[in-house]
Amino acid sequence: MTDAPHVGTLAAGLLGTIADVAGVTVGHCTLDEGPVQTGVTVVRPHDGDVYRRKVPAAASVINGFGKSIGLVQVDELGVLETPIALTNTFGVGTVANAQIRAAITANPEIGREWPTVNPLVFECNDGYLNDIQALAVQEAHYHRALQACDRAFERGSAGAGRGMSCFELKGGIGSGSRIAQVAGRSFMTGALVLANFGRLPMLTLAGVALGRSLAALEQQEQQKQQKPEHGSIIMIIATDAPLDARQLRRLSMRAAAGLARTGSVYGHGSGDISLAFTTAYVVPHLDDFIDVPALVSDARLDPLFQAAADSVEQAIIDALFSAVSVTGRDGHRRLSFKDMQANKP
Amino acid sequence: MTDAPHVGTLAAGLLGTIADVAGVTVGHCTLDEGPVQTGVTVVRPHDGDVYRRKVPAAASVINGFGKSIGLVQVDELGVLETPIALTNTFGVGTVANAQIRAAITANPEIGREWPTVNPLVFECNDGYLNDIQALAVQEAHYHRALQACDRAFERGSAGAGRGMSCFELKGGIGSGSRIAQVAGRSFMTGALVLANFGRLPMLTLAGVALGRSLAALEQQEQQKQQKPEHGSIIMIIATDAPLDARQLRRLSMRAAAGLARTGSVYGHGSGDISLAFTTAYVVPHLDDFIDVPALVSDARLDPLFQAAADSVEQAIIDALFSAVSVTGRDGHRRLSFKDMQANKP
Amino acid sequence: MTDAPHVGTLAAGLLGTIADVAGVTVGHCTLDEGPVQTGVTVVRPHDGDVYRRKVPAAASVINGFGKSIGLVQVDELGVLETPIALTNTFGVGTVANAQIRAAITANPEIGREWPTVNPLVFECNDGYLNDIQALAVQEAHYHRALQACDRAFERGSAGAGRGMSCFELKGGIGSGSRIAQVAGRSFMTGALVLANFGRLPMLTLAGVALGRSLAALEQQEQQKQQKPEHGSIIMIIATDAPLDARQLRRLSMRAAAGLARTGSVYGHGSGDISLAFTTAYVVPHLDDFIDVPALVSDARLDPLFQAAADSVEQAIIDALFSAVSVTGRDGHRRLSFKDMQANKP
Amino acid sequence: MTDAPHVGTLAAGLLGTIADVAGVTVGHCTLDEGPVQTGVTVVRPHDGDVYRRKVPAAASVINGFGKSIGLVQVDELGVLETPIALTNTFGVGTVANAQIRAAITANPEIGREWPTVNPLVFECNDGYLNDIQALAVQEAHYHRALQACDRAFERGSAGAGRGMSCFELKGGIGSGSRIAQVAGRSFMTGALVLANFGRLPMLTLAGVALGRSLAALEQQEQQKQQKPEHGSIIMIIATDAPLDARQLRRLSMRAAAGLARTGSVYGHGSGDISLAFTTAYVVPHLDDFIDVPALVSDARLDPLFQAAADSVEQAIIDALFSAVSVTGRDGHRRLSFKDMQANKP
Repeated sequence: MTDAPHVGTLAAGLLGTIADVAGVTVGHCTLDEGPVQTGVTVVRPHDGDVYRRKVPAAASVINGFGKSIGLVQVDELGVLETPIALTNTFGVGTVANAQIRAAITANPEIGREWPTVNPLVFECNDGYLNDIQALAVQEAHYHRALQACDRAFERGSAGAGRGMSCFELKGGIGSGSRIAQVAGRSFMTGALVLANFGRLPMLTLAGVALGRSLAALEQQEQQKQQKPEHGSIIMIIATDAPLDARQLRRLSMRAAAGLARTGSVYGHGSGDISLAFTTAYVVPHLDDFIDVPALVSDARLDPLFQAAADSVEQAIIDALFSAVSVTGRDGHRRLSFKDMQANKP
Repeated sequence: MTDAPHVGTLAAGLLGTIADVAGVTVGHCTLDEGPVQTGVTVVRPHDGDVYRRKVPAAASVINGFGKSIGLVQVDELGVLETPIALTNTFGVGTVANAQIRAAITANPEIGREWPTVNPLVFECNDGYLNDIQALAVQEAHYHRALQACDRAFERGSAGAGRGMSCFELKGGIGSGSRIAQVAGRSFMTGALVLANFGRLPMLTLAGVALGRSLAALEQQEQQKQQKPEHGSIIMIIATDAPLDARQLRRLSMRAAAGLARTGSVYGHGSGDISLAFTTAYVVPHLDDFIDVPALVSDARLDPLFQAAADSVEQAIIDALFSAVSVTGRDGHRRLSFKDMQANKP
Repeated sequence: MTDAPHVGTLAAGLLGTIADVAGVTVGHCTLDEGPVQTGVTVVRPHDGDVYRRKVPAAASVINGFGKSIGLVQVDELGVLETPIALTNTFGVGTVANAQIRAAITANPEIGREWPTVNPLVFECNDGYLNDIQALAVQEAHYHRALQACDRAFERGSAGAGRGMSCFELKGGIGSGSRIAQVAGRSFMTGALVLANFGRLPMLTLAGVALGRSLAALEQQEQQKQQKPEHGSIIMIIATDAPLDARQLRRLSMRAAAGLARTGSVYGHGSGDISLAFTTAYVVPHLDDFIDVPALVSDARLDPLFQAAADSVEQAIIDALFSAVSVTGRDGHRRLSFKDMQANKP
Repeated sequence: MTDAPHVGTLAAGLLGTIADVAGVTVGHCTLDEGPVQTGVTVVRPHDGDVYRRKVPAAASVINGFGKSIGLVQVDELGVLETPIALTNTFGVGTVANAQIRAAITANPEIGREWPTVNPLVFECNDGYLNDIQALAVQEAHYHRALQACDRAFERGSAGAGRGMSCFELKGGIGSGSRIAQVAGRSFMTGALVLANFGRLPMLTLAGVALGRSLAALEQQEQQKQQKPEHGSIIMIIATDAPLDARQLRRLSMRAAAGLARTGSVYGHGSGDISLAFTTAYVVPHLDDFIDVPALVSDARLDPLFQAAADSVEQAIIDALFSAVSVTGRDGHRRLSFKDMQANKP
């Protein structure tokens, strides 16, 4: 764990990550080879075959400067049918191919008697640190990340987070979780983010506009304000509360609140996308009728909304606190938040 | 019943109307006083208190040149909490007020301990026949239409349909129903339309481009093609199949297919809006958790999609065949389809 | 002006309100009669006939627990054709009627040779202070608010803000403005909010989580956390930057960031809706082709996004600082922020 | 040209294809090697660098059972920045990679000083004829299709259309165009479809429900009705009318009308997606302000809506009439419409 401040009044789960939601695991494959600073991260919603046991899900596109694949079908059908993959912008096609091949291997009926499979790959642009033009991500990297999935997982400069920047510091993978009480029952909500957005002067940490003073120290604020953002943030929210896709879309939208608290105004060039899924039930591939558990009433969703927003904010802070400084292509370097703090006069 | 052609291969219900869906009733209040040719139509999804026993629903805005009230909340929450009202464009506010007052009377907690109520009123512009500037619709007219709700109901030039035009003929209220088989179970789907769209040359009846020949007879095609549409169509779809709001949105979208078959290209000035609801379960106002029956798998929806599209097409034909000729403000007159057929040389 | 803190690094306009955007005026009609504590507020985008000189606009529904009228058509056509009205939830129908009658009076062709007019009325539920069941808002109140429109206007407990609560304090109308530089040109962006959301423990003022300590003082936090929100916030953004409707939708979405900074997670029962319009050009009602000025490139929008988010946050703070304490129905009372501060031990 | 019936009353352009819109070209790369029956088709909106001279565009997802890449950003920004590619479902990732590499080659600043590029690839599932599990599409195939772009292009079983089925006949690429008069000016609208949807009994050809009789001939209707659709249709609409992205979205929605006329109800398993773009102006990559020509008033869009719907219907008919019979994997064979007609007793 890090010494990051805890935001909000709700308690975190034991791990303080998305893996506090039972069944959810995360794995990385990290590429760290000179100018190639990138990778793949996978979030598995359960350890079964996601194509056969689809997972209720929905997304919110807060700012659509993004190149993900898979959201059209998630919007229509309200389910995931692969694990969720994250990588760099130019790795989407290759990781989608890997997801397709993995699904075919597990289910040879796909694209024959059965429909095709919907790959789901999110991305951020890590081109500042990573030689993104190298298209270095290979299909094997997806498989390695998938196999590495575990309740315990690295955050910060790992997997898809390897080359990411956040507030002009080192960003990457972060995670958080919160427990919410709904009508006498307790539900776990967790978030995992791929944080790659923001200019330094924006940074607001647990309510403190830290970025402005840090930027002033660097006497670069004016100059930096001119630089447009080419970043993004992907926010994955898991919950064990029984919700349907419409309600999960509502939950995913609360990521916008958690993100805003850190200083973001959803910059033009930042693909700010969130996706929420539930582990409370699955949608079996071949069933004619789908059994659904009793769903949380919309009128009782507020604690879950709070948990989602707080988990996302916490996950962004976690990304900053977990990251290590990285040097990548052309000598570009991002200081971690900790190293920058240590460097302060 | 009318002698209208039956479209498609699915069978209709006994009544051939939306009331074939058990529990659904329809009532009208018709205003027929010289230049005032308008009214209110109400569709009740069940005979209980819709605020306390909310009805799963969703809408598709095919062309948003429309002034309905209530869709923002239906989109977010996926339920109706009042009966569905239809009237002319300038009657929406007054009918919404009537719905509010009716809900308060039944539930005095509304706007005090409980949240407010979401009125749901759709409209078309009947200004060709009706003196719409008179704002003649009063709150009492909503209450009368509500009280008149019955499984048997008039179609054509009744209720909100009184002043409506369709393909430059007399339009108004139409209805249709279809039975679909899903995985060994039989479900009823019905549609009710308020048809007020189209120019004569567009009219396509059960696949026959009848409008062009009718227009030629009138030797007015060229002239009529210049006239922009100020019409609209509201399409209400009911089903007893167990679907959630996401699936009901999918169902509502199939109204676009039924509408297109009659010749429409969703004209700029035509507010083409559909709403689908299910009678398979309700969402109780105060429950913390909502029981949901086993839902039809999305992979088994095609027969329901066909039923929805066919019901809507049938309902439009029914509106044309059921209407009677009407003379309204400034001597404006719309011939019914039957009278026009009878007038043919 | 109030002594409210200035948020962010951008400068405000001279007035510090939405009226800093040239041509925009605001007027109120306030009802303050015992249990009736409500009103109407109008935002005029220009002093001409908005039906004939339509105004480019777009909206974002951040949380759709709301009963506004007019958004379906704004979404489709990207223009306003009436002034913007705000009132209480049960006043929407009546104010829409007033807008319709005003438009007909100015343009008797409406609903005859010309299409109908799209009323645009937003609402929040002021039922805590106001006897909302009285449906006290009358058409004349809209006309009075319209006639009162001026660059100088009251904020706080005026007009539609009269009965509104915010963070369990007195809320209502607030406004703010910011100047942004885009490629060497300076643009004004302003916001007006009708603030009626939030529970006290959430309140975050210019980054300070003030609400928790205030709530603790009142030793009521636990109890209050149980109370669901039945509030809402409407956020109107004006800009003189040349943007089209798609870009204005992007701008309107940034209201979600400003709102989140004050502590909101877009509660279930809070209709959180924003609308942005530009004064840079109009869309003439009868023109066949619409002249559009050179538009700001999307790649240059970040300063305007910042201005929109900051203006909305500032406007919410302004509502709190401008409001006066109000006592309404059944002895319900909301302390203003200032009175609460003064009452602190 | 084919002897296909002409639908509607508007005239076609000289070529009767999307290439009637000046500047638009189309190219194919066809893979025809035993069980591999697939390919890539490219639509170039102009012959310049689309990244530097972006093209106004918008899409409608009529039924989102689809795996395209690129629509999130098109929705947000309203422009294309690559040519439009079509291929089979499992070729999307590879073709996206090819588009990325082509953009980087042309503009080495991409992913460095400049933002990344948004690939835009649409797909249908050709798994009945094609061994889709082979993932046979390679990056080179995109480049070949791009280089083959020409005003004259093959339709039917070419390019991405090679393995596609439509109404259980041979489908694939089809195209159509229509001329519309708007306020004294003449505009060209064209469509290109990748048609891979429908069961035989649905087929409606220029208003005639031909499919039912054809299916009856085959005495297989009952059986075939049970088979779910795994098809899709992609509908690309080009116009030289000056429209903005909001209006192009409206135009793209009219594809739903053209599609419905051929018998489709937007089947569950059919990814029915349309995209419309204009050649009337471009959005330069680096400009601070974007010059926009005078846009067609929304009130004058009806002739363009008609042209779009008719072009799409015509393009579907063209696909059926242009296709040749194809035998693919496992001896699967699709008869062309012509061969089936010839085979009739």
